[in-house]
Amino acid sequence: MPLPVAPGTPVEHLTRALIDIPSVSGDEAAIADEVESALRACSHLDVTRLGDAIVARTTLGKAERVIIAGHLDTVPIKDNVPSRLSADGTQVIGRGAVDMKAGVAVQLALAVELDAPTRDITWVFYDNEEVEASRSGLGRIVRERPDLLIGDFAILGEPTSAVIEGGCNGTLRCEVTLHGKAAHSARAWKGLNAIHLAAPLLTALSAYDAASVEVDGLVYREGLNAVRVAGGIAGNVIPDDCTVTINYRFAPGSDLPQAKERVVDFIDAAYEGADVSRDVVWTDESAAARPGLDAPLARDFVSAVGATGADAPRAKLGWTDVARFGELGISAVNYGPGDPELAHASGDLERCPIAHMLSCHTALKAWLTT
Amino acid sequence: MPLPVAPGTPVEHLTRALIDIPSVSGDEAAIADEVESALRACSHLDVTRLGDAIVARTTLGKAERVIIAGHLDTVPIKDNVPSRLSADGTQVIGRGAVDMKAGVAVQLALAVELDAPTRDITWVFYDNEEVEASRSGLGRIVRERPDLLIGDFAILGEPTSAVIEGGCNGTLRCEVTLHGKAAHSARAWKGLNAIHLAAPLLTALSAYDAASVEVDGLVYREGLNAVRVAGGIAGNVIPDDCTVTINYRFAPGSDLPQAKERVVDFIDAAYEGADVSRDVVWTDESAAARPGLDAPLARDFVSAVGATGADAPRAKLGWTDVARFGELGISAVNYGPGDPELAHASGDLERCPIAHMLSCHTALKAWLTT
Repeated sequence: MPLPVAPGTPVEHLTRALIDIPSVSGDEAAIADEVESALRACSHLDVTRLGDAIVARTTLGKAERVIIAGHLDTVPIKDNVPSRLSADGTQVIGRGAVDMKAGVAVQLALAVELDAPTRDITWVFYDNEEVEASRSGLGRIVRERPDLLIGDFAILGEPTSAVIEGGCNGTLRCEVTLHGKAAHSARAWKGLNAIHLAAPLLTALSAYDAASVEVDGLVYREGLNAVRVAGGIAGNVIPDDCTVTINYRFAPGSDLPQAKERVVDFIDAAYEGADVSRDVVWTDESAAARPGLDAPLARDFVSAVGATGADAPRAKLGWTDVARFGELGISAVNYGPGDPELAHASGDLERCPIAHMLSCHTALKAWLTT
Repeated sequence: MPLPVAPGTPVEHLTRALIDIPSVSGDEAAIADEVESALRACSHLDVTRLGDAIVARTTLGKAERVIIAGHLDTVPIKDNVPSRLSADGTQVIGRGAVDMKAGVAVQLALAVELDAPTRDITWVFYDNEEVEASRSGLGRIVRERPDLLIGDFAILGEPTSAVIEGGCNGTLRCEVTLHGKAAHSARAWKGLNAIHLAAPLLTALSAYDAASVEVDGLVYREGLNAVRVAGGIAGNVIPDDCTVTINYRFAPGSDLPQAKERVVDFIDAAYEGADVSRDVVWTDESAAARPGLDAPLARDFVSAVGATGADAPRAKLGWTDVARFGELGISAVNYGPGDPELAHASGDLERCPIAHMLSCHTALKAWLTT
């Protein structure tokens, strides 16, 4: 059954249809086929598919080009597909309702509907956003067809409760491995317990007071956390290795080298004065992005969203692909339906108000047609 | 090829033959078959097999009965089977050389040779000593045929460098699970990081000053260690659970309830004044055993071993099956060839001096025949 994209169709119908096509990261082929098919039916769009990512562009020769992007994948399903409506009929419930099938629905509906926008538009739908950065479909487009991502301003439809959220925090992950010496646990003093060596690091993490950083008028809250710890090989062995995985979420204003240096300094400080053998391996790194609200197009967009009664722009705390546009020199913001704190929630907790979808649809349409 | 058990055969030949039959815990059938076959060939022995455990008894109607026991299994092989001799020809190298194929070789050779001992002897060879207590072959005999373990004194051939080591430390293991609250790591302040909650416990373990306890004239060194730590489910999630597995080695003189109470008090003290949700699950418990050197038979045995030039009796630190005999009301000591600190060592590090084997053979034979 084709996706319900005909103009005038309630956008929650399209949201539910998109939820009902399971599309956990790595398994986006079916949903990409449907989205591609809907876009190719539009004569006003020039469509390119790269793997399970699709780029659809108007080519009206306008002075400005806007990129509007959203990802097709979700985190694993947890008893929340197929979709349903809340009892009061005001919310769509299901995996991806928030992150970010509702945002994709708004974008896809507008891509089909807006055949004569006042600005040229590049619509981007992509795969593998919820997994390691190296698999990202948007990253694939950047590498293989950067020409498709030329533009003056970008909007990423990640959930923001239909409020503009500027920029995003960056994220780093590293594995800190502490090296001890194995021994039989009946003669522990012959060894050096690597799990015990993790104590200073966990104590420092526990005591860490995360900064709140103001950038371009928006406040970004940071975070430094152990997200994994593993050590020990048997119940009667003093372990020689223990690995703590640390995730650092850092505000725009620091670049990746600066953020890494801060983590290394933090680890070194935790072990200051102690002769503890350790190594640090970086396993993931994604830059932060500035809000970008100083661009002229962004100011127009802020006005259009303000007209829907939405709150003033605020900082985006989670890392999003806004950072990729920042790296391309394109100002970008997050703007989409759904409460980001309900993203990835299990069962019927992931739910998106239909009012958010309508608000986003109204603001984007107004901005792109007047 | 049958085991080389004929009287007069150098005991290192039998040690090497036993090493060359791989017998990692759970895989002892082949070695048990060979041992059983050698014992059944002796008309002076009454042989019973229970699973992969074998009991062989003289029934001469003597006033006293001695139990001499050893386990057939080893920890996993690490490039150290088949066996070989050291370059100088004085040591046997290979998995189990220390723990405890050399001890088994001495016992098996004597079981075959001593057809007219001055005390009745119960020889016990059993499986699954190197794994959780519930699988122990000796435990199986205790449960199914306790009549086979009636005796006045027991010697366990665990490695002691051919010195009598009295009693043994007890061992407890528990899993301490700390409960936090999951959250996306971009909004860490919405959760409670369970890995960070482990910091006070690891700090306390790191600072723990293990006691040395004197019991019946021997000094037992204790130990309290994390042997495993595990927490974290994904690189962008604040974990809600973190589990630290603690191993407590405690001196004889405390029973299991007392030792458990000490661990619980230690954990409680680590979290004193902090409202940290946690639970403690006991996963392994084995009692300590007193030295047992006050029994009359033990005094004779101490004299026989002293005549070989061995050091005076000392405390056994690792937990051994001596504790099982203690629970049956039978005084017991450890006495066997090999340096216990080389037990479980990899490659050619696990090695046993032939001189130890000869010394044990001499002392046991003297004690059992005069």
